[in-house]
Amino acid sequence: MSSRRRGPRPAGTDTREAIVHAARKQFSEKGYQGTTLRAVGAAAGVDPRLVLHYFGSKQQLFMQSLELPIAPATVIEQLAAQGPGTIGERAAELIVSVLEDKTSRRVMISLIRAAASEPEAAELIREMLTTSFLLPLAEHVGGANPRLRAGLAASQVVGLGMARHVVGLQPLAAASHEQLVRAVAPVFDHYLGGDYIIEQPAAGQPKAR
Amino acid sequence: MSSRRRGPRPAGTDTREAIVHAARKQFSEKGYQGTTLRAVGAAAGVDPRLVLHYFGSKQQLFMQSLELPIAPATVIEQLAAQGPGTIGERAAELIVSVLEDKTSRRVMISLIRAAASEPEAAELIREMLTTSFLLPLAEHVGGANPRLRAGLAASQVVGLGMARHVVGLQPLAAASHEQLVRAVAPVFDHYLGGDYIIEQPAAGQPKAR
Repeated sequence: MSSRRRGPRPAGTDTREAIVHAARKQFSEKGYQGTTLRAVGAAAGVDPRLVLHYFGSKQQLFMQSLELPIAPATVIEQLAAQGPGTIGERAAELIVSVLEDKTSRRVMISLIRAAASEPEAAELIREMLTTSFLLPLAEHVGGANPRLRAGLAASQVVGLGMARHVVGLQPLAAASHEQLVRAVAPVFDHYLGGDYIIEQPAAGQPKAR
Repeated sequence: MSSRRRGPRPAGTDTREAIVHAARKQFSEKGYQGTTLRAVGAAAGVDPRLVLHYFGSKQQLFMQSLELPIAPATVIEQLAAQGPGTIGERAAELIVSVLEDKTSRRVMISLIRAAASEPEAAELIREMLTTSFLLPLAEHVGGANPRLRAGLAASQVVGLGMARHVVGLQPLAAASHEQLVRAVAPVFDHYLGGDYIIEQPAAGQPKAR
């Protein structure tokens, strides 16, 4: 891409890109825990304060640096749009793709590993998987308790990442893309659909006896 | 229980119990990684070599020290026996119970945490969840590729443990036993049943074109 520059860069559109590029590299090489805004700034050749200025926090920088197969902003729209296959199939396709792409997998896995011991990374998983991705899907599908439905779907995403890429459970780890999507799509449909939800009486309404 | 003794105990039936009792305490307080056979022996008041003599390895000691709601030896038998509900329901009931019991949850969670960074703990998860538990169930259900079916079910177990007890995803973490069993039982039935399995042509048989 552009040749390397020495010293601070002037602010501009390619500054943002240089930061994202450096962040992506560090997150995938050093994990979430091992990456600092200072080091990302240094690698991008910018003042670390500019990193904060553009992204606000390490969490936000991480979210922006994830190379998703589709842009995060349009994921929900595309998944929720009418099209061939169920929402579960489209969600499974996306998740399996993210876990198969070498860069995004390293980032996701380092995050799952970090979540095992670091509350900040755990919060980020909650943010990424539920608030920005599975909760809007669960809300789109409609029905009671979308947060619980999204959380159950998220548990399967985390479990798939752990079992395939951290624990290395065979033959699951070596299963084909097609095989995985066929296996997990009905599970996402089930969790997001929520036939199993036990509805709670609304607060203030006494329970019938 | 029995009063504390000083110095090495003579070998006997209660020696084994004293070791298991000490191991259970240490695994749940210090995690899998932090527990040593030496420290377990010291806490049980026995020579560490006796611990090895009775259990063979830390992995075996761990397996024996898990307080499962039903004895491991009869789990498969009971789950596979005719009875009310599907196999998925009975497996879900067991897994949710293990994750709800305070002691067995601490042990399972420390193991999942450890698996994120320690290959030995990862191997133990493979051993516990698939070889001794889900693989026999998948084989009992019958059909192609029982290892893949067991592995997918294991991914959901690990994911549930991570999402509820490590990441602390709400409201999943606070969901009732009944709600969880209703949510995950159909998933175990799906994974163990294997309608989604893409059968591979047997080795040596050329693929039809």
